[in-house]
Amino acid sequence: MSNELHQIIEALAKSARSASLALAGSSTKQKNEALQNIAEGLESNRKLLTIENQKDLDAAQENGLNEAMIDRLRLTHEQIDGMVSGLRKLIDLPDPVGALIEEKERPNGLTIKKMSTPIGVIGIIYESRPNVTIDCAGLCIKSGNASILRGGKEAIHSNQALATIIKEALQISDIPTDSVQLVPTVDRQALNHLLTLDQYIHCIIPRGGESLIRFVSDNSRIPVIKHYKGVCNLFVEEEADLANALKIAVSSKCGRPGVCNAIENLIVSERIAGEFLPLCAQELIAKGCELRVDERAGTILQDFSTKSATEEDFAEEFLDLRLAIKVVDSVGDAISFINQFGSGHSESILTQNKAKADQFLKEVDASSVYWNASTRFTDGFEFGLGAEIGISTDRLHARGPMGLESLCTYKYNIIGNGQWK
Amino acid sequence: MSNELHQIIEALAKSARSASLALAGSSTKQKNEALQNIAEGLESNRKLLTIENQKDLDAAQENGLNEAMIDRLRLTHEQIDGMVSGLRKLIDLPDPVGALIEEKERPNGLTIKKMSTPIGVIGIIYESRPNVTIDCAGLCIKSGNASILRGGKEAIHSNQALATIIKEALQISDIPTDSVQLVPTVDRQALNHLLTLDQYIHCIIPRGGESLIRFVSDNSRIPVIKHYKGVCNLFVEEEADLANALKIAVSSKCGRPGVCNAIENLIVSERIAGEFLPLCAQELIAKGCELRVDERAGTILQDFSTKSATEEDFAEEFLDLRLAIKVVDSVGDAISFINQFGSGHSESILTQNKAKADQFLKEVDASSVYWNASTRFTDGFEFGLGAEIGISTDRLHARGPMGLESLCTYKYNIIGNGQWK
Repeated sequence: MSNELHQIIEALAKSARSASLALAGSSTKQKNEALQNIAEGLESNRKLLTIENQKDLDAAQENGLNEAMIDRLRLTHEQIDGMVSGLRKLIDLPDPVGALIEEKERPNGLTIKKMSTPIGVIGIIYESRPNVTIDCAGLCIKSGNASILRGGKEAIHSNQALATIIKEALQISDIPTDSVQLVPTVDRQALNHLLTLDQYIHCIIPRGGESLIRFVSDNSRIPVIKHYKGVCNLFVEEEADLANALKIAVSSKCGRPGVCNAIENLIVSERIAGEFLPLCAQELIAKGCELRVDERAGTILQDFSTKSATEEDFAEEFLDLRLAIKVVDSVGDAISFINQFGSGHSESILTQNKAKADQFLKEVDASSVYWNASTRFTDGFEFGLGAEIGISTDRLHARGPMGLESLCTYKYNIIGNGQWK
Repeated sequence: MSNELHQIIEALAKSARSASLALAGSSTKQKNEALQNIAEGLESNRKLLTIENQKDLDAAQENGLNEAMIDRLRLTHEQIDGMVSGLRKLIDLPDPVGALIEEKERPNGLTIKKMSTPIGVIGIIYESRPNVTIDCAGLCIKSGNASILRGGKEAIHSNQALATIIKEALQISDIPTDSVQLVPTVDRQALNHLLTLDQYIHCIIPRGGESLIRFVSDNSRIPVIKHYKGVCNLFVEEEADLANALKIAVSSKCGRPGVCNAIENLIVSERIAGEFLPLCAQELIAKGCELRVDERAGTILQDFSTKSATEEDFAEEFLDLRLAIKVVDSVGDAISFINQFGSGHSESILTQNKAKADQFLKEVDASSVYWNASTRFTDGFEFGLGAEIGISTDRLHARGPMGLESLCTYKYNIIGNGQWK
C-alpha cells in the first residue's frame, strides 16, 4: 500500500477518536437533532441520490453482477422512505448513554457507580446495500459512538452521496463532522491497515457474507462482534402438538428462506416421525423445498423425492428452499446434535412436556433458545429492542439481537472523601 | 510445528469444549465440592509441590533468571495457604450461572428471559507465578467454564503438579476431568495454533507483561480480554484539600509502585502548583522517587533534583519509584491530557468543587474514574466482587476489575405457545 493511503487511513481513525470524545458528551437533544437533520437531508436529496445510485447500477451491469446483487444495490424511493422512517424511530428511542446500571457503597465509604457510556469508535465493514450506511450511522450517533463506515466497492457512489448528506446534517447540529466518516477507498490493503488501529478504533462490526466476516475476523487486531451464519434447528419432540408443529416447521423454512433465523435442520423424535414427516414433506415439497434426509427419515419418506443428507449438510446455512431432516431417539440426542451442528444462533423445541423443554432451554448452547415458537422471532424488533445493528453469534459483550444497548460499554465512577491506602 | 503437536492441541481444545457443555449443567453443589477437593489436594500434597517447585527453581538458577523472577516462581507454604484460602472464599461466593437478568413479555405473547450462562471454554495464557494455575482454574470452575491453562516454561514442573491435583479433585467430584487442562508444552507454535481454534475456545485471557499480551492479542482469532498497562493519573485540582492530596499523591505512587493501579503521572493545577509541588516533591524524593517534570513544574521545583519529562514519559508505565509531573491550566486541559496519555485504567480528580468533579467523572474515558480517592482502589476485592481474574482496559464485555460475573455471558430463553410468522 502506498504510504499516502496509509496516512489517510490513520488520519481518519485519529480524527474519529477525537470526535468520539466530544460526541460522548453530546446531549440527547443534540443527537436527535442530528438524526432529524439527516432524515431531512435524505428527503431533500432524493434526486441526487437516484443519480448517484444509477452510476453504481450502471457499473454493476457493466461488470456483469447478477440480478440479486444488483437488486441489493438499488436505492428505490421506498428504500429512502425506509431510511427516513428508521431515523425517526431512532429519535423516539431512549438514549442509552449515562444510565446508572448499578450503585454500591463499600465499607470504606467509597460509592461505586457503574455508568453506561458509549464504546468510542466503531468500524462497520459491510457489503452492497447502501442503506446500511444510514442505519449504522444513525445507531452510532444515537449511542454516542463515532463511526467509520467501509462499504462495498459496488456502492461507492451511493455511499459517498449518503455520507455527504450525513456530514452536512452533523455540521448544522453542532456535532463534530468527523463523528461519521466513510472510508474513501475500497482498497483491501487500506482495510487491512484500518483493522490494526486499535489505539483509535474500539470495535469492528462486519456485516455481510461469511467470507467477508471471516476475512475481517482473521485480520483484525480490534475486537470484532460478528455473526457468521444462522444454522437454526427446529426439534419436533414426541409430545408436540403436531398440527401446530406442521405450521411452525413449514413457515420457519419457507416464509423467508434467505434470512438467518430461518431453519436449516428439522429434527424429529423417532416415535412421531412416521406420522409427522410425511405430512410435513408433502407441504414442504409443494412449496418447492428440497429435502436432505438421514437414513431413518429416508425410510419413512421413501415415497417422496428426497436426497441423502451428509454431515456437511447438517452444518450448512442453505439460505434457500432446502431443509435437512434428522430423526433422533431423545431430547438428549437432539441437544447433542444441535450443540454439534448449530451455529449458536436460534434453536427451538416443540413439546407439551415442561421437563423436557426445561432441559432443552438449559442445555442448548445458543444465543436464542425457544420453547413452542418459531426461530423466526430472533430479531431486534421482535425482542423489543426498537432497533438492530446485527445479531451476534459470539459470546462476549453481546449475544443474539443487538440494539442500542449493545453499542454501549460502562465505566465506574468512584466517589470518595479522601480515601487512600 | 510437528503434525503430532498440532493434533495434541486440537484434541485438547475439542475435549475442553465437550467438557464445557457438561460443566455448564453442573450444580452449585458439585462445583463447590470440586473446589473443596482441590483445596484438600493442595493441603495433602505440600511435599510433592515443594519438590516439583524446587525443580523449577533449580532450572531458573541454572538459566540465570534474576532474583525478582525467581521470587515470582517460588511456591512457599504461605502461597499454598493463600491458594487454599482463595478456593474457600470462592466456595462462599454466589454461583453466577443461571441468574435471570431480565424478563419481558412481548405483545405476541412470547416471554423473553435473558439468562446468565457460562462463556464456554476460556484459555488463560500466563507467565511465571504458578498460583495463577489454581486461581484461574477455581474461578473458571465456579463460573461453569472449562479452562485451558498455558503457563510459562519456567514453572512447568510446578504447574504440572498443580494440574494433577486438580484432575484428581475433579475426578472424585463428578465433574469431567477435561474441564481443566494444562497445555502440555510451552512451544510457541503450539500456542499460536491454540489461538486459532475459535470453534472450540471462546475467550482468551492473557495475564502477564505487555509483550506477552501484545503477542496473544496480535495472533489470536479468539476474542481476547486484556489489560495492557496501567498508566494512571492523579489530578490535584486547585480546589483540592491539599493536606489530603499530599497523602493520596505520595501513597498512590510509593505504596506499591509495581502494581497497575499505582499512579504514573501527577497533574497539578497551575494556581496551586507553587504551593503544592514543593511539599509533594520533598516527600516523594525522601521516599526515593525520581521526578520527571514538565517545564512549568521544573521551574517551580528548581531547588529539587528532577529530570525533564518527555512525551514518552507521560505514556509510560514505570512500575517503579518514578513519577511524571504535569502542570495544567484547567480541568479541561487535565481531561485532554489523560485521554491522550492514560491507558484507560484508573484516573482521579481531587477537588472540593462538585461541578468540576462531575465534568471529570463524565469526560474522562477510563474504566475507573475517581473523585477524592486514590486510584489504588481499582481491584476486584475493593470493588466488592469477591474475586478477580484480572482488570480489563478493553471496552467490550468487561471493563475494569473482572469478577465471576465477567466470566459469564447470557442467552435468551423464549417461551411461546405455538407462535409462528
